[in-house]
Amino acid sequence: MKADLDRLMEADRIDAILILPGEHPDPYRAYLSNGAHFSGMAIKQCGAAPVLIANLMEVEEAAHSGLTVYSFEDFDYGRLSREYKDDPHAFQAAWYRHVFEKLGVQGRITVYGVGDINAAYSTILNLSQHLGDMVEFVPAQVRNNLFDRAYETKDADELARLRDVGQRTSAVMRAAREWIAGHRAADGVVVQADGTPLTIGDVKHYVRMQLFERNLEDAEGMIFAQGRDAALPHSKGDDAEPLRLGQSIVFDLFPREPGGYFHDMTRTWSIGHAAPEVQAAYDHVMEAYRHSILACKPGVSTREVQVLVCEYFEEFGHPTVLNTPGTSSGYVHSLAHGVGLNVHEAPYFPTFSDTHTLRPGNLFTIEPGLYYPDRGFGMRVEDTVYLNEAGEVEILTDCPYDLVIELKG
Amino acid sequence: MKADLDRLMEADRIDAILILPGEHPDPYRAYLSNGAHFSGMAIKQCGAAPVLIANLMEVEEAAHSGLTVYSFEDFDYGRLSREYKDDPHAFQAAWYRHVFEKLGVQGRITVYGVGDINAAYSTILNLSQHLGDMVEFVPAQVRNNLFDRAYETKDADELARLRDVGQRTSAVMRAAREWIAGHRAADGVVVQADGTPLTIGDVKHYVRMQLFERNLEDAEGMIFAQGRDAALPHSKGDDAEPLRLGQSIVFDLFPREPGGYFHDMTRTWSIGHAAPEVQAAYDHVMEAYRHSILACKPGVSTREVQVLVCEYFEEFGHPTVLNTPGTSSGYVHSLAHGVGLNVHEAPYFPTFSDTHTLRPGNLFTIEPGLYYPDRGFGMRVEDTVYLNEAGEVEILTDCPYDLVIELKG
Repeated sequence: MKADLDRLMEADRIDAILILPGEHPDPYRAYLSNGAHFSGMAIKQCGAAPVLIANLMEVEEAAHSGLTVYSFEDFDYGRLSREYKDDPHAFQAAWYRHVFEKLGVQGRITVYGVGDINAAYSTILNLSQHLGDMVEFVPAQVRNNLFDRAYETKDADELARLRDVGQRTSAVMRAAREWIAGHRAADGVVVQADGTPLTIGDVKHYVRMQLFERNLEDAEGMIFAQGRDAALPHSKGDDAEPLRLGQSIVFDLFPREPGGYFHDMTRTWSIGHAAPEVQAAYDHVMEAYRHSILACKPGVSTREVQVLVCEYFEEFGHPTVLNTPGTSSGYVHSLAHGVGLNVHEAPYFPTFSDTHTLRPGNLFTIEPGLYYPDRGFGMRVEDTVYLNEAGEVEILTDCPYDLVIELKG
Repeated sequence: MKADLDRLMEADRIDAILILPGEHPDPYRAYLSNGAHFSGMAIKQCGAAPVLIANLMEVEEAAHSGLTVYSFEDFDYGRLSREYKDDPHAFQAAWYRHVFEKLGVQGRITVYGVGDINAAYSTILNLSQHLGDMVEFVPAQVRNNLFDRAYETKDADELARLRDVGQRTSAVMRAAREWIAGHRAADGVVVQADGTPLTIGDVKHYVRMQLFERNLEDAEGMIFAQGRDAALPHSKGDDAEPLRLGQSIVFDLFPREPGGYFHDMTRTWSIGHAAPEVQAAYDHVMEAYRHSILACKPGVSTREVQVLVCEYFEEFGHPTVLNTPGTSSGYVHSLAHGVGLNVHEAPYFPTFSDTHTLRPGNLFTIEPGLYYPDRGFGMRVEDTVYLNEAGEVEILTDCPYDLVIELKG
């Protein structure tokens, strides 16, 4: 959690974390600035609260963080930009020198952020060259960096937000289920009151309205995929396609609330009835889900839970990534991932490496699934859960698991 | 435009552009992949069309680009991840070596993208160390890089999208104006049918509904700011505040269509009546707008147009960034910026450097404004325009400029 950052910085001998200015939504900036909406810089020195440096026009927005806020002008931005108007590299270096000197930043610095990669890389090279006397830029690990390790557990403020977005997201999915159930069928497809087919596009429109009314944003694009598309785990679904009876539908919803926190959940539905092979596979998925929940305890490696699910599926003849790497049939992905300011964050559940050991404060998905593109069906069941102080799994998602939706219209 | 990339790569002696995999919305990836929704890698070698490398699960989505698509598995991702399971750096290098060898990528490579900066920096360092025999990673310029120069002009496909998003965005703003005008006033504030005040939050809700119905996304958050907030150019506005008569309101709307293209426009309104000092300043802004439009011709430096606007404002006693750098009163920003897959992209209109010369195919905003936080008002008028083949400015925004909204309710 956020309070771990100082300890993690000490362990990695990092003197300061630098978030570069940029206009892209940035979970790192949101984390350090307590969700303030600004596009400036954040600097966190080890043992001290972050300070923010904002464009003059954004100083007031940045102050909503409750942190100390400077403006670019406090470090002579305007004067330096004129002095070095023909040399952007020298200007950049001179300005950062002012910032670092005034704030006492020196030593080993790591840059974090989501933004323009090339611009950031150029900035790091430029500052390394010009400010080598005061700072050293240290790359973080490819995996499991400072923030990844902090994200692994959530504090009370984050948990409250994540519970709330979980409740609202669940309400949207329940509403969508009820709304679909209120329709009737004709010629094997779901139809609207006027007899025209109800399409995936119509459903997504309804869901976006429901999200909108609950102040949630479909930031990364929901999945509502049917039949063979449901067997391609990241196909978003074909908007033009009518909802068909007896086809598996994967509905994966992962919206973001205004503070930046996500919820992630999936249900699989089959309208009217389910084909026997779909029902049989679904029973395996639900059983894998239950095994997973029981296996998630403090001290357990996430790999062990993933392998347990693979082995369970393989018992029933489903290929998995454990013994059929690269398979696109059967169980083709990992079981879970953390959820927070990123839809996907630590802890991860890899198949072959012991990267994370479960502990209280972890907040993650559980999402077993089975995919058979050649047989025209796929399925996944996903909840977001919290491993509490008592070491128990609390399920933050609240939505029925029933495969078949009976039409009542 | 996109067709310029090969020429620009040759000029910079770049053999290949590499877009790293990542889940963040990425205008560079969208540009190279013709807007396909996938989170994988894109590689463009000089003189050849881009190729895409997608997660197995996203191969079909990536194919919507019309480009050649490989899967990660085509380069032995699974086998290598097992072989190097305890050494992520070696695994990464081995996999990229397979990719580069099979595709014939070698020489000077530049990485572009919007994504996790730290992860990208680590990747570049790791690959530089392990693959130094085949590739050299070249940082792009801090400003005006390859893509910036390509973005400067739009081709016919892009222009069609940008015209369309301009029309839809304009329709939303006109609808909002009409909707507000349909209300009545009581005690100096705008009220709803039931007598409760109409708030900024209510207006934003209405606008989001209008965007939603036109399949536009408020991706970066509109500005609807009143009174003193209108004088802080990037204040988003206070949702709880009722709309007050005779206060300047800055409404800046910059939504994105599903293909990733933005429109950017601003209007300033004053409901019921305008204070004389607000009307006088507004007349200056509109006159600056007209001067700007007339000044934008092929061959003109964007700096000249910015300076012309500064000088015009200074004639009337308004401080500007030209002679009062860092000012937060008067004219405090630059006149314009390009618009495309980024809300802000080249060409830019800086005050002190000749960075861009206008030419046919440019597409940019014109947005003079005046800001007086101490006097409690601010204003900006912004259209997005296109400099066509004939060298004429075509205005893509279509919305009245009238400052005062008369209430009809």
